[in-house]
Amino acid sequence: MTTITEAARKTTLIPPSSGDFSSRQPKTIRLYPVSNYTFGTKEAQPEEDPSVSARLQRLQDHYEQFGMRRTCEGVLVCHEHGHPHILMLQIANAFFKLPGDYLRPGEDEIEGFTARLNERLAPVNAQYPADQHTAEWDIGDCIAQWWRPNFETFTYPFIPPHVSRPKECKKLYLINLPKHKVLSVPKNMKLLAVPLFELYDNSARYGSQLSAIPQYLSRYNFEFV
Amino acid sequence: MTTITEAARKTTLIPPSSGDFSSRQPKTIRLYPVSNYTFGTKEAQPEEDPSVSARLQRLQDHYEQFGMRRTCEGVLVCHEHGHPHILMLQIANAFFKLPGDYLRPGEDEIEGFTARLNERLAPVNAQYPADQHTAEWDIGDCIAQWWRPNFETFTYPFIPPHVSRPKECKKLYLINLPKHKVLSVPKNMKLLAVPLFELYDNSARYGSQLSAIPQYLSRYNFEFV
Ligand SMILES: [Zn+2]
Ligand SMILES: [Zn+2]
Ligand SMILES: [Zn+2]
Ligand SMILES: [Zn+2]
Repeated sequence: MTTITEAARKTTLIPPSSGDFSSRQPKTIRLYPVSNYTFGTKEAQPEEDPSVSARLQRLQDHYEQFGMRRTCEGVLVCHEHGHPHILMLQIANAFFKLPGDYLRPGEDEIEGFTARLNERLAPVNAQYPADQHTAEWDIGDCIAQWWRPNFETFTYPFIPPHVSRPKECKKLYLINLPKHKVLSVPKNMKLLAVPLFELYDNSARYGSQLSAIPQYLSRYNFEFV
Repeated sequence: MTTITEAARKTTLIPPSSGDFSSRQPKTIRLYPVSNYTFGTKEAQPEEDPSVSARLQRLQDHYEQFGMRRTCEGVLVCHEHGHPHILMLQIANAFFKLPGDYLRPGEDEIEGFTARLNERLAPVNAQYPADQHTAEWDIGDCIAQWWRPNFETFTYPFIPPHVSRPKECKKLYLINLPKHKVLSVPKNMKLLAVPLFELYDNSARYGSQLSAIPQYLSRYNFEFV
């Protein structure tokens, strides 16, 4: 942050314009300030599995009964100071995750993902008037897929050679946030707005999937209002 | 690689089907084997600048006269063993780069990029019959942008906070390769097909921009023919 005011930083030394450079790009995404969103709390949502090995065992049970697990996560983007920030859940002051979860067997992708987002972040009944800022989720482009080839913790942003039966596919989607929205966060989690520059090149803190969010989003141009 | 034949690896233990999981994704990209492409050679194309500081000085001269530099690079995808490979230039047995270069001032983006791709990789006149496999480039989606905020070597997949006048924007585009194509490679370079699994998590060898190609492409599904 600078202590120089916006006005004082302005200059009349304008560089020449370099010409159009927007071919083959998606529609510009409009971002609103994080202060446009209202954060409430709701009951804690403890982890489903007590350990990594329990989680992998459950994945294996799922695979044998229902095939590859389908997991959906949302990248919710807003801004501060004209720089994109991602809304992320932090659990127990430790690890970070995106809102979302796996689909139930046979569940439709977008319907199931919408249900998971609501379970995680929608205000509970009558906490807010029904007509106020609790609209449906606007689920945008798939921005990344990560594949789990085995019942192990390793995942890759491609299907590794000679793997024909991945055990899980996780899809990340861009969520187009409306101008205002009320979000209710389970009591055992925090919802933080993490800037792209903090995620970038920081897999030590955020892991391979989340630290690459700047790269997934780099093809978009943003408009800050 | 396995020594077990394809047929011997087949099994009748088919896992259950997990249901559709293709919402919000781009059209499946068809990839052809690298052996479909013919590689020739042409005259050497030496580096324009003798040093990093000369390159940055030239960027500064460009910026002062013409504004932000616009650079275009192509991600040419084919496959081997059903795994995507990227065609990359290697210079002097050392560093890697993608085909492409910066646009001239005032040049149209797609026209200029097509000219740069032809300068680098098109067969020279009469080397091959004009009608054979020398069709235009099919320039697809922008898959990433990298910004250079200062006349320095650092680049980022976003515009850093409080930067309003980036000095260079480099765009990477997916190039949809046709079934066959003849490519002529300058004598001082090699064209290598590098698999995604080799690029992944390997910024030490390929740099930040190229090692993230698997992440840019992870939202696509590929069809290997
Ligand atoms: Zn600031
Ligand atoms: Zn409102
Ligand atoms: Zn193989
Ligand atoms: Zn042919």
